[in-house]
Amino acid sequence: LLFASRWVNPPPSVSLAEASALPSGFVAGAVSAGVKQEGRLDVGVLQCLSPEVVSAARFCDSGVIAAPVVLCQTECDLSRVRAVVANSGNANAATGERGMVQARLVQTGAANALGLEPREVAVASTGVIGVQLPGERIAGSLSGVAPTLDPHGAASFASAIRTTDRLEKHASMTVALPSGDISLAAQCKGAGMISPRFATMLCFVETDARLEAALADRLLGTAVARSFDLVSVDGQLSTNDTALLLGSGASGVEIAPGSDDETAFAAALEALLLALAILVVKDGEGARRIAQVAVSGANVDETERVARHVANSPLVKAALFGGDPNWGRIAQAAGAALPGRPLALDIAIEGLAVCADGAALDVDRASLERAVARDEVEYSLALGGEGALSRVYFSDLSYDYVKINAEYTT
Amino acid sequence: LLFASRWVNPPPSVSLAEASALPSGFVAGAVSAGVKQEGRLDVGVLQCLSPEVVSAARFCDSGVIAAPVVLCQTECDLSRVRAVVANSGNANAATGERGMVQARLVQTGAANALGLEPREVAVASTGVIGVQLPGERIAGSLSGVAPTLDPHGAASFASAIRTTDRLEKHASMTVALPSGDISLAAQCKGAGMISPRFATMLCFVETDARLEAALADRLLGTAVARSFDLVSVDGQLSTNDTALLLGSGASGVEIAPGSDDETAFAAALEALLLALAILVVKDGEGARRIAQVAVSGANVDETERVARHVANSPLVKAALFGGDPNWGRIAQAAGAALPGRPLALDIAIEGLAVCADGAALDVDRASLERAVARDEVEYSLALGGEGALSRVYFSDLSYDYVKINAEYTT
Repeated sequence: LLFASRWVNPPPSVSLAEASALPSGFVAGAVSAGVKQEGRLDVGVLQCLSPEVVSAARFCDSGVIAAPVVLCQTECDLSRVRAVVANSGNANAATGERGMVQARLVQTGAANALGLEPREVAVASTGVIGVQLPGERIAGSLSGVAPTLDPHGAASFASAIRTTDRLEKHASMTVALPSGDISLAAQCKGAGMISPRFATMLCFVETDARLEAALADRLLGTAVARSFDLVSVDGQLSTNDTALLLGSGASGVEIAPGSDDETAFAAALEALLLALAILVVKDGEGARRIAQVAVSGANVDETERVARHVANSPLVKAALFGGDPNWGRIAQAAGAALPGRPLALDIAIEGLAVCADGAALDVDRASLERAVARDEVEYSLALGGEGALSRVYFSDLSYDYVKINAEYTT
Repeated sequence: LLFASRWVNPPPSVSLAEASALPSGFVAGAVSAGVKQEGRLDVGVLQCLSPEVVSAARFCDSGVIAAPVVLCQTECDLSRVRAVVANSGNANAATGERGMVQARLVQTGAANALGLEPREVAVASTGVIGVQLPGERIAGSLSGVAPTLDPHGAASFASAIRTTDRLEKHASMTVALPSGDISLAAQCKGAGMISPRFATMLCFVETDARLEAALADRLLGTAVARSFDLVSVDGQLSTNDTALLLGSGASGVEIAPGSDDETAFAAALEALLLALAILVVKDGEGARRIAQVAVSGANVDETERVARHVANSPLVKAALFGGDPNWGRIAQAAGAALPGRPLALDIAIEGLAVCADGAALDVDRASLERAVARDEVEYSLALGGEGALSRVYFSDLSYDYVKINAEYTT
């Protein structure tokens, strides 16, 4: 499933490994602390056992940032994170100072269980906003996490961090770098409150390659910008987005900055994160169909603005769900994105031109209806001029999206 | 129904008149041209019979502007419009030069039927985007419009311009100005593709007051900014928005700029347009519940940005539909609107404080559930600081919104 989308092209150096396997130097596990329903795994722990660990992190930017994100940003050494503790079922966002206290309780509980300093433990939360996290209860349950930690613990860790997700979103792979084979794995969650810049999600990435923290930071930043930054389920920026990359160095294979190893590693990492990001979209709350909108034109501000307007338009998304070839809504969304002058807009759906220079073309209706009935639909827009290209991947707007978000407090 | 919302307070000078009655000096009527389903009225005509007519207009601003809007902006004398021809069922947008030709055919057809110059006839269209308008057929049907024109023709005119609207949106009133009584009427359409700045809608306003074109322009601009600019059904800017004010002067009551008459007229006009704008929201595609979000804080850019983010959030809208008191989504939307620093955010729902200084409060759940079960729900947000206040009125996101927009090409 990981590479099922035609929009992901993994490099030939990549071969998939058993999905629950972690790169050498890592263990993971999970416990149940009663944050989600009784008995379900809801607290995951990931640990790097290697003394040479390096790490890098990215977070969302919002005026309402969750306590665990603030804690990571202010009290962790983000280039030397040795462990992660992440809970689902409660975002610990809009919880004020008390929320910070709860996040610290969780961090300290994990540090005690693993024999680490609190600043070496990153914390992450996902779930409902505006409810206090039971930090003490989570810290208590963490005293039982050590026996669950396992080099094949990726699956239970990933399961503990999921909320409304239906699809599993973790993968493990071997990458043949010029200097030798390394392992790369990631565990991800995300289904709603997903927007470019970036998705509402948690994503933890591990590798046993040896690399410096500055390089890890550059590699993670670029890969996130080319994956999670490009997806939207509902255009809703979250309060908790966290992406962390940890390197154990345990393979002994070193990635030198600027080397062919870096190029090969970057390609594998980007394919992995894009595949996971597209899985997030496919798993978008209530989604039946997903789409890619690709906008080309004179400058990247304009192409990005148009791509996001199209991806976030409830009219476009409802038409995508219904298999309705009503491209007039794509034109409307593009026009709303760039007011002020008439756009010389070209639109094609799956290569079928429907609009040229702002005006409707005669189109074979049957071909168009077949095109929009696919599981993955491609919209191409050209704004005139050349140079920039922006893509956004997005899901449809369905009855189930409304159901999930109207009938449950998620 | 017009003044049913608690958010509209008509001044005491206003008394409602029979809704199909037009102010003196005006007639209206409608024909069927087969643009909508066979036999339904789909082309409305409004005419001012007074030689002293003045007018003012406002249009949406988009990179994809419908041909009738372009025609009005480039070929009409917008301060001296004597008649309007408006069709439903087809937006004549994204139709290129051929669309302009069709719009001119309609304009000329109406001008011929009414004995006017084409430049004295404003044209407007609403309906599906990206389909050529049958201009010749409409022009042909307009040869039969003259016998339908009637001083009580507002209802059939209004019926001809509606599309997915379920509620009637026309009203007529008498306004007791200090200098004497005048009449004021408006016919409006709009239900989907509705966004602040401004609603996807057509609105035609008539008065028999005597006023100069410059004053009409100022009055219309202010009233639109305080009504149609403040509503959102789905955050989707249209390609066709048109608001026109026509004054016949037939009452003989003159509104001098800066006079108490102007103040009283402005208050009545604003109440009328706000009432119609809220009817548009109430009639939002699939809507069960509507809400007002009022955001106060340091500057109007920030308050407006937050109000729109909340009003357009599918998560907030689905919770509104479900009667779910999940205010964390309001916090999330506010945070997404203003990234970069933690917001000292206060949130209240129907006066119940749920969040203070960015942190959740203990709230009586039963009271909160009663508050969000109302037909009209008020969210109040304070960003800290004082001065600015922005309001947006919006509808919920329902199964029927998805149904209307997924299963039909609208």
